Amino acid sequence: MPGNSRAAGTHHSRPSSSEKPPDLEVTSIAEVLCLTAFFGRLVHFAKVTPQKVFWKDTKNICVMVTIVLTLIDLVIYGSLEAVNIRGVRWSRALRPVFLINFPESRQIRRTFRSIRNTLPDILYVFLLFLFSMMIFSLMALKLFGDRDLRTVEGSPYFTNILDIAFELYVLVTTANSPDVMMPAYELNWWYSLYFITYIIINTYIFMSVFLAVIYNNYRKHLKNEIHTLAYLKHHKMTEAFNILKVKVGTEFVVKEAQWRRLVKVVAPDVSSSHLELLLRISDEGQKGHVDKVNFLRLADLLNIRVVAINIKKHPLETWMPRVYQSSASLLVQKMVQHRIFVWVYDVIILINAIFIALDEKDSLISYAEWLFLSLYIIEILLKLYTYEPSAYFGRKQFWNWFDTLIIIAALLATVANTTIQARKYNSQQVLDIVLILRILRLLRVIVSIQRFRVIVTTLINIGPTMLTFGGLVLVVYYAFAIIGMEVFHGKIHFLDPGSGSPDALVCGNPALKDSAFAQGRYCKNNFNDLASSLILLTELTVVNQWHILADGFALVTHQAAKLYFIGFHVVVVILIVNIFIAFILEAFFVAYSLEKSEVETAIEKKIQELGVGVQEEEVQDGGLIDNMDAKDSGFSADEGDNKKKDLKGLYFRIASKKYKTVDTLLQQMFESEIAPEGKDPSLKEILSFSPKKVNFDNSA
Amino acid sequence: MPGNSRAAGTHHSRPSSSEKPPDLEVTSIAEVLCLTAFFGRLVHFAKVTPQKVFWKDTKNICVMVTIVLTLIDLVIYGSLEAVNIRGVRWSRALRPVFLINFPESRQIRRTFRSIRNTLPDILYVFLLFLFSMMIFSLMALKLFGDRDLRTVEGSPYFTNILDIAFELYVLVTTANSPDVMMPAYELNWWYSLYFITYIIINTYIFMSVFLAVIYNNYRKHLKNEIHTLAYLKHHKMTEAFNILKVKVGTEFVVKEAQWRRLVKVVAPDVSSSHLELLLRISDEGQKGHVDKVNFLRLADLLNIRVVAINIKKHPLETWMPRVYQSSASLLVQKMVQHRIFVWVYDVIILINAIFIALDEKDSLISYAEWLFLSLYIIEILLKLYTYEPSAYFGRKQFWNWFDTLIIIAALLATVANTTIQARKYNSQQVLDIVLILRILRLLRVIVSIQRFRVIVTTLINIGPTMLTFGGLVLVVYYAFAIIGMEVFHGKIHFLDPGSGSPDALVCGNPALKDSAFAQGRYCKNNFNDLASSLILLTELTVVNQWHILADGFALVTHQAAKLYFIGFHVVVVILIVNIFIAFILEAFFVAYSLEKSEVETAIEKKIQELGVGVQEEEVQDGGLIDNMDAKDSGFSADEGDNKKKDLKGLYFRIASKKYKTVDTLLQQMFESEIAPEGKDPSLKEILSFSPKKVNFDNSA
Repeated sequence: MPGNSRAAGTHHSRPSSSEKPPDLEVTSIAEVLCLTAFFGRLVHFAKVTPQKVFWKDTKNICVMVTIVLTLIDLVIYGSLEAVNIRGVRWSRALRPVFLINFPESRQIRRTFRSIRNTLPDILYVFLLFLFSMMIFSLMALKLFGDRDLRTVEGSPYFTNILDIAFELYVLVTTANSPDVMMPAYELNWWYSLYFITYIIINTYIFMSVFLAVIYNNYRKHLKNEIHTLAYLKHHKMTEAFNILKVKVGTEFVVKEAQWRRLVKVVAPDVSSSHLELLLRISDEGQKGHVDKVNFLRLADLLNIRVVAINIKKHPLETWMPRVYQSSASLLVQKMVQHRIFVWVYDVIILINAIFIALDEKDSLISYAEWLFLSLYIIEILLKLYTYEPSAYFGRKQFWNWFDTLIIIAALLATVANTTIQARKYNSQQVLDIVLILRILRLLRVIVSIQRFRVIVTTLINIGPTMLTFGGLVLVVYYAFAIIGMEVFHGKIHFLDPGSGSPDALVCGNPALKDSAFAQGRYCKNNFNDLASSLILLTELTVVNQWHILADGFALVTHQAAKLYFIGFHVVVVILIVNIFIAFILEAFFVAYSLEKSEVETAIEKKIQELGVGVQEEEVQDGGLIDNMDAKDSGFSADEGDNKKKDLKGLYFRIASKKYKTVDTLLQQMFESEIAPEGKDPSLKEILSFSPKKVNFDNSA
Repeated sequence: MPGNSRAAGTHHSRPSSSEKPPDLEVTSIAEVLCLTAFFGRLVHFAKVTPQKVFWKDTKNICVMVTIVLTLIDLVIYGSLEAVNIRGVRWSRALRPVFLINFPESRQIRRTFRSIRNTLPDILYVFLLFLFSMMIFSLMALKLFGDRDLRTVEGSPYFTNILDIAFELYVLVTTANSPDVMMPAYELNWWYSLYFITYIIINTYIFMSVFLAVIYNNYRKHLKNEIHTLAYLKHHKMTEAFNILKVKVGTEFVVKEAQWRRLVKVVAPDVSSSHLELLLRISDEGQKGHVDKVNFLRLADLLNIRVVAINIKKHPLETWMPRVYQSSASLLVQKMVQHRIFVWVYDVIILINAIFIALDEKDSLISYAEWLFLSLYIIEILLKLYTYEPSAYFGRKQFWNWFDTLIIIAALLATVANTTIQARKYNSQQVLDIVLILRILRLLRVIVSIQRFRVIVTTLINIGPTMLTFGGLVLVVYYAFAIIGMEVFHGKIHFLDPGSGSPDALVCGNPALKDSAFAQGRYCKNNFNDLASSLILLTELTVVNQWHILADGFALVTHQAAKLYFIGFHVVVVILIVNIFIAFILEAFFVAYSLEKSEVETAIEKKIQELGVGVQEEEVQDGGLIDNMDAKDSGFSADEGDNKKKDLKGLYFRIASKKYKTVDTLLQQMFESEIAPEGKDPSLKEILSFSPKKVNFDNSA
């Protein structure tokens, strides 16, 4: 019963043929328990949401149908098993549905919706693409079919229309270029024009059109969703204003006391100094009330993370001020803050890189490793001596954390390795980790080159949303892996070539004799367990040589198996990879074109006006050096008025835009296109605009 | 002297080893003549442009430097040749400079400028990418270097840092996936994570970032150029207005007579009815003068192609009205106009496709070919009977022309083929053409599916600008081909494997013994003549197997030869292909998001007001059927006023947007972002904004 070991449902089960498959009862009970949990969640959900909303939500319907189908499958499989017939657990491919429907998977659902909306547009382009492929297939058949040409492997070349269609589909993915052209090219050079035309039309133009259509839809859809959200926010805020408003003079306003109470309720963790700052911004004239325009901005104001910076003295300075302020100590601090200090360490890293590349067997080099490690530790200690530790390890000081963690990890791993080696026990795993950590240390070079830091920061910035794609890919991979495991399980085996078994050369299946699959030693690419399947699917996503893998599995089963691989290519490479590219493009454009939003600029202006600001750039680019300068000059600023005293001892700055989520960035990007304040669409209008969206986001 | 046969300079010289190389004198004289011509052109240019502008123009400097360098090269080569030393004609790689600097190559220059502006941004991403590759190379060396692993070919696996770096660069292009992973994967499955991480970071993320950076710059640059153009237009029109204006009442205007004269001068080929129409639009109140706002619009008005449609009766109707209007004849016309007529022919095309796929040797099928051909001819004749011929073959009736030309070509080719075969002379070339034409006929299916037609029209629309890329690619290919021919000429030969020569298996070079290059039968991929070089470079652009080609040429020369191939990949695949994709994306977005421009809508409104309009959609979508309806109803419209009589007998419509160039589309797209009319930047401001642009476009 090879199926059971997979039914355990761990996503990263280690492949191990010696693993004992768990009993059918155990897995069934686990599954029934899970289903009950999901069902319970659904029932609870139905209780807290209005009937109408609940039944309109695709998410709930999906879960319900999946639960029922899984139960049916379980019953059928159980009864078949009872009479000793091996059934197929087809419902396993549906499992990702539960994953998608968690509230936390909002982004994945959004991407799925985006795909669903793109399908009609994609479909026609795809049909036209297939039509073009058909025309070219017919041409190839007529041009080359009767020539009695042979491929490099000696098989007939372009004689069967189905084979031609498959070869041409592979050519679109470029995986068999230029081999597929060579026999015709050898016959006459001008036949190469046929292939070049084909590649220009189908690979370059059609594939770009796919990207364009997907990207265009992605953007359109995103814009719609964000519009809806913004409209909804505006509407709710107006409703709130209408409840709280009182008439002062000619206009309706909200009183200061009311406003304070409201903020305390909706954002209980806002500090009182932050609240004061918000009030100053909302009530510009200090009239004791907030007008409508400023009230509607409240949600945006609360969304902007304002960081209160406490500028503290270095603990050593408080502890032993004389020593810390001595000329020798000040010299050290100046040295560490100097540019040359950074450069010296860059050179050290470079030398380190050369040592790593050299052979490690030499004991001198092994000692050098300790030298480098201590140099790095000295660097960190010096920095901690110079900069205030709690600021150095501030929440947003990504690079400092990165630096320190890498070095501590390398230290620990090196120590562990030495200990193990001293006991004459050589663990490959530990050594591998030590080696990787030692090399990762070189990444510190990025920190000292500003342009590199900007690019990496942008990439890290879009990281969380990129994980959405991780989730999406996992869902699709899982479904394909389950199907692949059902169809191709056990057809191909990896046997150690060292064993000398003749079967090892044909992956345990004589059908693969002389195939490119066996010749390429691809036996390890099989569907025998989940890990192998996922790695194989990754290889298929990279595209290259996918036709050889497809051919291999077709040989051990049936030619129709190629459809599985073509289907995977269409879904993953044409759809999902293009969405991924569209996402990266959009994220980069947003990051490039982003200016501060109107609301943010207002806050920043106020912070500066109140004299409690720290320039964002200083903190961001100059590390802590400039921050320390700000400490010195901040209090000697020209103003000494009342306003400032209220907020004294605290410095504010807007949390750097590099830590915003892509969602915020996008919302900001489309902000300008949202209807002006005057226009006030009714709630009904908004809901009918995109009814599902509202559901998802309210419930999630 | 193999160099000489290439010095002849024909771009498409057929490869032929028996071709006799022309004398050195002949080619030299030809070259000197060409240089003189280019120099003369430059002198003429210098005379007609102001000194300052001339010397600021990079274009002129480039041409001058190239002429001087070519002359120096020619002299050196000649003198070396005189003393029998074989020189290198290095200046040949510079030849495309002349091509770029023709006024007609404005688009190519624009793309080059765009690339130049992108370089600084790309550079840092590229350096970071190389840094990441270095880190991964070091890791690979440490992880796999000491394991004594072997590749499928039996060579050592990941032992040398330079080899590793090359393999990893190839992996970025995906060309050696998954082969490069297999030995490590066989050792332990978790090593595959190293490769998957590498591919995610370097292939997916970095390559997308390259696309994003290039696309972003492309857009920014384009926007700048179009802004400058629009500002310049506005400025010049204001200047013209200031010269022509007279004061009427409180405002300055241009008198009708003046205006007429101006239009006659700047656009002499505008018909008088068209002029009348423009005047009606510009002088809305028919006050006898044109105000400033309308005057400034004149350039836009003249840019819009207004088509005057003469609706004529069918010649048969004039010639023999009774027969043409008889009930039988009307039935035929109704039949042809019916939807089912289209469907019947779609089915015929489908059956035709099946017949084509079947074996042709059968004489029955060969007769069927004649049947299909006559069916298609009957279709065209019937359509010509129903629709007015000069309208059917109107300038804009792309699909009708396509239809008819394909069928006439197929007819001619089939007749030619039959004649030749009857004389027992079987020409492969003619047969190939017949086969291709026969299959191209199937493209007619596209015409009857509306969604397909839209996609194809969009593609045809961006076709002309796509040719720009053809030019760009040709320039880069030519330079690389010349270098490749100098370095690799004669190293690899294609020998007919049928000859039985043992050298045929190693491409005439023993260094290739047992190489993947020879095993893949890639001998025909060489740099022995220009055609082969260009085909080889195309294969390198497609990327797949490029490392095998690079390896092959490295084996017959030196490992450093791989740098040539890496350089080609960076320039063509990373830069140019990404610009191509950026262009297609942009063109598609423009086509998707395009609404009619303000000015166009005004004209259309006027045309409708005057009662002389034909709905664009009618002509466009319904073919001629609706056009005929318009003929019937057009004159019975409600209005019969004076205005209409002036323009009687003529119908106008705005030339469909599908025939606009991408330049117009882009200009229109950015139109909204141009400063409002009130703001009037000085000419100096505009010129300093982008000084080069103005030069290029004025002189071109």
